[in-house]
Amino acid sequence: MLTPQTNPRGPAEHERREQIISAASEHFRHYGYTKTTVADLAKAIGLSTAYIYKFFDSKKAIGEAVCSICLGEIAQALHAIRREPKPAADRLRRMYAELARRGAALFFNDRKMHDIVAAALAEGWQPNQTYTEDLQGLLRELVQEGRDAGEFERKTPLDETCRAIMLTMEIMKNPAILEMHLDTLEEDAAVLAALVLRSLSP
Amino acid sequence: MLTPQTNPRGPAEHERREQIISAASEHFRHYGYTKTTVADLAKAIGLSTAYIYKFFDSKKAIGEAVCSICLGEIAQALHAIRREPKPAADRLRRMYAELARRGAALFFNDRKMHDIVAAALAEGWQPNQTYTEDLQGLLRELVQEGRDAGEFERKTPLDETCRAIMLTMEIMKNPAILEMHLDTLEEDAAVLAALVLRSLSP
Repeated sequence: MLTPQTNPRGPAEHERREQIISAASEHFRHYGYTKTTVADLAKAIGLSTAYIYKFFDSKKAIGEAVCSICLGEIAQALHAIRREPKPAADRLRRMYAELARRGAALFFNDRKMHDIVAAALAEGWQPNQTYTEDLQGLLRELVQEGRDAGEFERKTPLDETCRAIMLTMEIMKNPAILEMHLDTLEEDAAVLAALVLRSLSP
Repeated sequence: MLTPQTNPRGPAEHERREQIISAASEHFRHYGYTKTTVADLAKAIGLSTAYIYKFFDSKKAIGEAVCSICLGEIAQALHAIRREPKPAADRLRRMYAELARRGAALFFNDRKMHDIVAAALAEGWQPNQTYTEDLQGLLRELVQEGRDAGEFERKTPLDETCRAIMLTMEIMKNPAILEMHLDTLEEDAAVLAALVLRSLSP
């Protein structure tokens, strides 16, 4: 079995990769994704363009890695809510609030990062698909738990219920709409969660 | 009282205005809104730029008039559904289907017009606000009718119910999201309508 000790090249490369992602993330946040070239990144990090290309095929691949970390943090927060020992209804309500809060924060505090996520979505990047699938799985578990506990109705096929709930989450999840609902996002999330919870009542 | 007969200048100007809107609509459909200048329009219609400015302050004002007609047609179709002598639940379901159908048609058959509507939305144009308010009023009437008939629950404040339903309609109403859901739009609309109807059950 390979361990970090027996394969020192592995972790070094891994670290270098992380270092590039981290520097790229900083650079994108300041200068924006579209305006940055791989040559700009290489210069800022102090590496050659050729060296960066050893780790990433393209600027898009770097953008995907950055985006993946950003969406991964949101997903982790939602997973943490899912694991709380609370009624499923409470947890679902909190998931809406958390999505709204993080969506707004991404937009206000981290405008350039928001633009990368928006690009990821518009162009169907892999991290966004992964994030969506992750959210779908999470929601499915939560609704099933609510059904098992007798909190939620069981007549509607689980797939249909989860698909419809995912669609109501687009307002907080999709940067293109989020932008148009910024002023009212938290309240929008609350009334949507309340509607969904009424639809789930047995 | 002024009638068309006693004020021939009124209807003539009105007709000329309609003529400009109609020509502009054609032109935008072919060449796109952003690429067209008022000078292009004037040339295509055979009028002077100065003459067009007698009717419209700016290109945006012409775009708004074109957009207004396009959204007005969708609103008319939804009003017709609202007036049908059917249970409120059926009419609400049909409204979702109609929004999806017209949204997809606008996108597929009339891509350039879709772009004008998208611009109207992104930039907060007046016709889009008018359309949204129209839809809100329509929805309010329908939900109230459903409540009066004992079809829908009455515990949730009417404002909150209508606000949440409007938010679920964004998927079909907002060109930026519609675009990402095109392949599944009619089914998405159907599962959303079903969720909303479950939330409305007494």
